[in-house]
Amino acid sequence: MSALTKLRSRIGPPDAGAEVEARRRLDQLTKPPASLGRLEELAVRLAGITGACPPPLRDPVIFTLAGDHGVVAQGVSAYPQIVTAQMVENFLRGGAAVNVLARQAKARIVVADLGVATPLPLHPDLKALRVAPGTEDMTRGPAMTRDQAIEAIEAGIGLVEAERARGADLVGTGEMGIGNTTAASALVAALTGASPESVTGPGTGVDAAGRRRKVEAIRRALARNAPDPADPLDTLAKVGGFEIAGLVGVILAGAAHRLPVVLDGFIAGAAALVAVRLEPAARGALVAAHRSAEPGHGRVLDALGLEPYLDLGMRLGEGTGAALCIGLARAALAVLTEMATFKSAGVTDRAGGPGAP
Amino acid sequence: MSALTKLRSRIGPPDAGAEVEARRRLDQLTKPPASLGRLEELAVRLAGITGACPPPLRDPVIFTLAGDHGVVAQGVSAYPQIVTAQMVENFLRGGAAVNVLARQAKARIVVADLGVATPLPLHPDLKALRVAPGTEDMTRGPAMTRDQAIEAIEAGIGLVEAERARGADLVGTGEMGIGNTTAASALVAALTGASPESVTGPGTGVDAAGRRRKVEAIRRALARNAPDPADPLDTLAKVGGFEIAGLVGVILAGAAHRLPVVLDGFIAGAAALVAVRLEPAARGALVAAHRSAEPGHGRVLDALGLEPYLDLGMRLGEGTGAALCIGLARAALAVLTEMATFKSAGVTDRAGGPGAP
Repeated sequence: MSALTKLRSRIGPPDAGAEVEARRRLDQLTKPPASLGRLEELAVRLAGITGACPPPLRDPVIFTLAGDHGVVAQGVSAYPQIVTAQMVENFLRGGAAVNVLARQAKARIVVADLGVATPLPLHPDLKALRVAPGTEDMTRGPAMTRDQAIEAIEAGIGLVEAERARGADLVGTGEMGIGNTTAASALVAALTGASPESVTGPGTGVDAAGRRRKVEAIRRALARNAPDPADPLDTLAKVGGFEIAGLVGVILAGAAHRLPVVLDGFIAGAAALVAVRLEPAARGALVAAHRSAEPGHGRVLDALGLEPYLDLGMRLGEGTGAALCIGLARAALAVLTEMATFKSAGVTDRAGGPGAP
Repeated sequence: MSALTKLRSRIGPPDAGAEVEARRRLDQLTKPPASLGRLEELAVRLAGITGACPPPLRDPVIFTLAGDHGVVAQGVSAYPQIVTAQMVENFLRGGAAVNVLARQAKARIVVADLGVATPLPLHPDLKALRVAPGTEDMTRGPAMTRDQAIEAIEAGIGLVEAERARGADLVGTGEMGIGNTTAASALVAALTGASPESVTGPGTGVDAAGRRRKVEAIRRALARNAPDPADPLDTLAKVGGFEIAGLVGVILAGAAHRLPVVLDGFIAGAAALVAVRLEPAARGALVAAHRSAEPGHGRVLDALGLEPYLDLGMRLGEGTGAALCIGLARAALAVLTEMATFKSAGVTDRAGGPGAP
């Protein structure tokens, strides 16, 4: 717990000075003020988070964490549990959606096994951090022990710190875990007080009967475990998952190291909710990449006070939304750093005269 | 007129076979069906428009057309008219927002003078196609003659056909013209029957009094010229502009050559409305890049039946939104072409068994 406590104390607010500097720079560029809308706002936010203007973006890293969920025994997913391990192998071969979209965004991916049920072969690019071979079925008892949840959080922290040392300057979140929309919905219901019904969707694509089984499983898990919403670690342990706990660590470590944390979709949002309940100042480092098609994501974004940059009806996870948003971040920073100013281009500003303020 | 008539006859519907092939390919990839939402839909649309699966995207070109507007005499812009020419020079030096965002998207820009008021120096990268040094003030008479409008349309057609011959495989639209949101609002009001009030916004950033002057100028222009909404060329000539007419040609030529036409924002939308009124089949080639902050853009998108991919509160024009959307198109096609299939990756599909359909 000490690593987590120490980390939390390092998380501070965005740097207002760097934000002002970015805003001032943007207003000198050859365009009407604020006419690039949220692209400009994103540039300002990245400056504030990193405390630098222009903020660096040389080595964005997406952390794709995998874990399995005992609750799949309740028939909550359209896919069998073995797909978690198969997809990890797909990530390592570069064939999954997140690989493709990360390549487009020139982002690296770090793939980690936080708790996959099926044994995975040793692979130089796989971070083997398995806390246990999948969580317990949360409808019958806690998904994890509190110590396991902390172990997974600290594993996530370690991943970010290792990549930070290698030069990572932006953190994207990603995940893979058959059954993990059920865990995320349970977490969101427990932490926000929303009804399981209102925050549970089709996930990978279950039918109406499957969705009813998810809602029922979440209801039973909450009744059986009575997670304490005032104790985010308790809630995380009882109805979360290893990869979600790992992402809590990734998010807190990103915030502590003043790295922008680009949240993917619903699962990442649930992890962010836990992170912000543990340390409210972490919110300042969060960038919501996109609005997931999962119905519970809106509730998460509202609770976090975040407005996503993309709304493309995506619901895949893995870090795919984060990868697209990293592309937007690159565009935002290119605007900040590459555009001519009114003065340098000899363009008349609205007040008249070249480069007039 | 013959070039335009010939071109219109070439515009056909999207290729349903290529769309089906793209859909089938996407459903074999290692992700739940349709879980990448509109990114998948974009890949399917590009296949349909080009008639190829996968569709090519090696040489996207943004056509940034410039023109001036006599209506600026009515005090409708926050910037003086000379800024049109200054920004053209900025485009040629690579310092404007569209240059920066096109570089990010690996797109080329073609800059053309369709009717800038201020003389521009010769430049190897500037297409000198000036029909006249700016339109007439539409509050006092027609902005252009019908022949001028046709000349500008045919200039736009010529630009696309020249770049098509060089390998262009996607057309983005861009524009620059102080006063052109006033012309676009007038066009949209005339063609859709919307009130000038409802489709007029701040443009580059006029204040409330400036916006009232815009609305008033549009009302007077419509009353003075009585454009015939059943005759899109008449409407375009009376209240449009040279760069807008050029974009009508760009859009029709893109559609005729089965190139995806990525529309930027409000001005491009007004041009697309004219193009689709001239040839309804052109609609099938249109991709709406983003939803502009200009209030009239929603009306345009509704009239065209298009749903934009981005909604970032942008209102700059130049082709900046088109450039961002080209980045999304690259991502969509990378998904289509680079991802592993369930079969190739040995991942169990929902029906069970590796690669089961």
